[in-house]
Amino acid sequence: MTAEIFAVGTELLMGQIANTNAQYISAKLPDIGINVFFHQVSGDNPARLNDALRVALGRSDIVIMTGGLGPTMDDLTKETVAGCFGKKMVMDEESMSRIRARMASYGNRTMSKNNERQAYFPEGAIIMSNENGTAPGCIIEEGGKTVIMLPGPPSEMRPMFDGKVMPFLGKYAQYRLESRFLRVFGIGESRLEDMLKDIVEAQSNPTIATYAKEGEVTVRVTARYPAAGGNDGGSGDIVSGEEGGGQGDGGSSDSGSSKSGVSGGGQGDIIAPIVDIVRERVGDCLYSTEDEDMEAAALAALKRRGLTLSLAESCTGGLMASRITDVPGSSEAFVSSAVTYSNESKMALLGVRAETLCSFGAVSAETAREMAEGARRVFGSDIAVSATGIAGPGGGSPEKPAGLVYLALSCAGGTYTKELRLNGPRARVRNIACLNAFDMIRRAALGLPQVD
Amino acid sequence: MTAEIFAVGTELLMGQIANTNAQYISAKLPDIGINVFFHQVSGDNPARLNDALRVALGRSDIVIMTGGLGPTMDDLTKETVAGCFGKKMVMDEESMSRIRARMASYGNRTMSKNNERQAYFPEGAIIMSNENGTAPGCIIEEGGKTVIMLPGPPSEMRPMFDGKVMPFLGKYAQYRLESRFLRVFGIGESRLEDMLKDIVEAQSNPTIATYAKEGEVTVRVTARYPAAGGNDGGSGDIVSGEEGGGQGDGGSSDSGSSKSGVSGGGQGDIIAPIVDIVRERVGDCLYSTEDEDMEAAALAALKRRGLTLSLAESCTGGLMASRITDVPGSSEAFVSSAVTYSNESKMALLGVRAETLCSFGAVSAETAREMAEGARRVFGSDIAVSATGIAGPGGGSPEKPAGLVYLALSCAGGTYTKELRLNGPRARVRNIACLNAFDMIRRAALGLPQVD
Repeated sequence: MTAEIFAVGTELLMGQIANTNAQYISAKLPDIGINVFFHQVSGDNPARLNDALRVALGRSDIVIMTGGLGPTMDDLTKETVAGCFGKKMVMDEESMSRIRARMASYGNRTMSKNNERQAYFPEGAIIMSNENGTAPGCIIEEGGKTVIMLPGPPSEMRPMFDGKVMPFLGKYAQYRLESRFLRVFGIGESRLEDMLKDIVEAQSNPTIATYAKEGEVTVRVTARYPAAGGNDGGSGDIVSGEEGGGQGDGGSSDSGSSKSGVSGGGQGDIIAPIVDIVRERVGDCLYSTEDEDMEAAALAALKRRGLTLSLAESCTGGLMASRITDVPGSSEAFVSSAVTYSNESKMALLGVRAETLCSFGAVSAETAREMAEGARRVFGSDIAVSATGIAGPGGGSPEKPAGLVYLALSCAGGTYTKELRLNGPRARVRNIACLNAFDMIRRAALGLPQVD
Repeated sequence: MTAEIFAVGTELLMGQIANTNAQYISAKLPDIGINVFFHQVSGDNPARLNDALRVALGRSDIVIMTGGLGPTMDDLTKETVAGCFGKKMVMDEESMSRIRARMASYGNRTMSKNNERQAYFPEGAIIMSNENGTAPGCIIEEGGKTVIMLPGPPSEMRPMFDGKVMPFLGKYAQYRLESRFLRVFGIGESRLEDMLKDIVEAQSNPTIATYAKEGEVTVRVTARYPAAGGNDGGSGDIVSGEEGGGQGDGGSSDSGSSKSGVSGGGQGDIIAPIVDIVRERVGDCLYSTEDEDMEAAALAALKRRGLTLSLAESCTGGLMASRITDVPGSSEAFVSSAVTYSNESKMALLGVRAETLCSFGAVSAETAREMAEGARRVFGSDIAVSATGIAGPGGGSPEKPAGLVYLALSCAGGTYTKELRLNGPRARVRNIACLNAFDMIRRAALGLPQVD
């Protein structure tokens, strides 16, 4: 079965937002053996929406649409699909009363005509109730094609997709793909590809591919197993009115199989041997075999050793702390961060010496050292990491250009400093400074050597 | 002229990344009167790439492709386009020597055969040198169609697009679109649409549309002017070897016309009267007429009044400081932030009293108040804002559920506290807590009343 993700929304074509819905859905469909071969985006214009829909139906078995289910006159997804299949629009009583109840709970005593349109569906559609917004979704199955219509806002789309669409589509699964994502930091994509060239070329199941992300590389190992047959979740229970099925959003993605080690139908785990080969060749630069971000890997390492962490940030401006605290359970290890943007606050909060700032400047290994040692002392943590530098684009000079960042890690064993000379833009400098800092924390916690 | 943005990359279809390239390009093309009507994504598979390309050429005048120019065997964009137009692939000497020089600067004495492929182009293509990576881009113009091929990595794509593609396409502009984006916080999309219904329906030039973002609404006012004729930038000077043209990335988006007040060709500014109507109806809830994020608006307000700001964050974990420091020039107003994740650090750093924590708990208006007043005292800033709450998904209780957040703002005039009860997920709670905090700062700095 092949799928196409088709987002409707002029705001996408005008570049106001990125198509994160397509990303979310695409990451999950392979788990049930459905290949996503295309994405499309069209705007609200009915003629072009119709054309794009026909393109999708011409080349894909399953078309998953997001957007265009809202209450405004521009929301025409259901009508266009109905037109494509020669169906009329009919009202669903259950949906109508749920919408009325929701509008009432917002304090609107009367519903506008616009909201009423959200209770109309192509005749014969399976209706999916929306626990997180007004617009129900729906599914049409006809002539060997399946069209799934979901709301646009991610906070509404994701629970409906997870709780209703995934179980519904599970019945198509002939085989299952399971991917493990290995995260590598400290080796560039080109060099890593050379290091793995032989297994990349030799393998057909699992397949191996490398993807460069900013500052790091992901190795995807994908195995294909026969479908287990039978699925969890009530694939039949998705008619309008059913409350359950919505998966709570835990903040971090929980795309099941890419994290589990579950293998399919009695076959052995064919991914594990590949992971072992990669680990052998890449060594400590392999920081996660579970697609964790570096900050999560660092936190896990701290928790494993029962160590606490504090931070002293200047050029990263709170980003380091923000990313650490984004990881669930961070409060067990993370104590505090001081974002000391000015020289005064570096001195007042962290005890950085005026002489150090005068002799070496705020952007120096010496200042980074004192920031880290000061944070460790003030916050009483086992490990403290600091970052001071010039994120750019402004603020640089010939001696200290934009992209120059000093990191320091202070722990019982001493203080380690690291100099980075990064290429902009600003967000990239801050991101790569964070990656390096988190890697230093991971290595210190696990007793691995630091690297330049 | 209509355009289609076509990204090539299996990592997009597998949901590993979102298509930010399409967003970036789509935001800029309307400035030169080119409408983007479709986006597509296909993977590396040659047959499907070819099919998707033919769909694009069938419905769009200009096809802008990103990705598939790399050195690996999966990178087939140029070959597929050449095949579509019946052209052979020829080597460009200039590109070959530039690639050799770049590989040498990385310390690779010999180039791999893979890298050499990056110096081959469809015969007759205009070549665009890449100042930020190895793969040059190129353009084919034939039979009324234009196909533009750009590298996938955003740090390489953006400068090439800004510096070479935009001037090149500028010659097609028959009219110019200019958009102003008005940002509104504190009024929901549905209610705002009702408030503006009459002008939305009456207007054809400019057009007006509302877009909901998480926690706020954007009003887009788009005017259409005749093209000025003649363009800045050397639209002819984009052959391989030309060094200039790359626009530095300033970190924050600088999509020219959406920020300038420039009107086209002698006509008056037809957007300004609409902005005035919106401002009149929406009042203080209109926080920017220049598409600034709330943190930028807050910073601008602080700088206008010469006020300094510090922060004390718990549940937002450094995100507030990180977003504030992301705004260029923040060091003029922003002093420091303490991310006090534990009760101990709230007491040690900010002087929050143990009795307050015992009587009311960390998540309370009283604790928020003491955090803000403490930060203001410790950092010596004019204004200090604190946030303490439960971002979720865990950590809640019946009395204090996930999504409960207390904010406080301390200034010379006193301390204002605000209670929020937000729906998850975690990132949404943190984002909306930040939006509210930045709005409180903006209002305090501008002398506007605070709102609940």
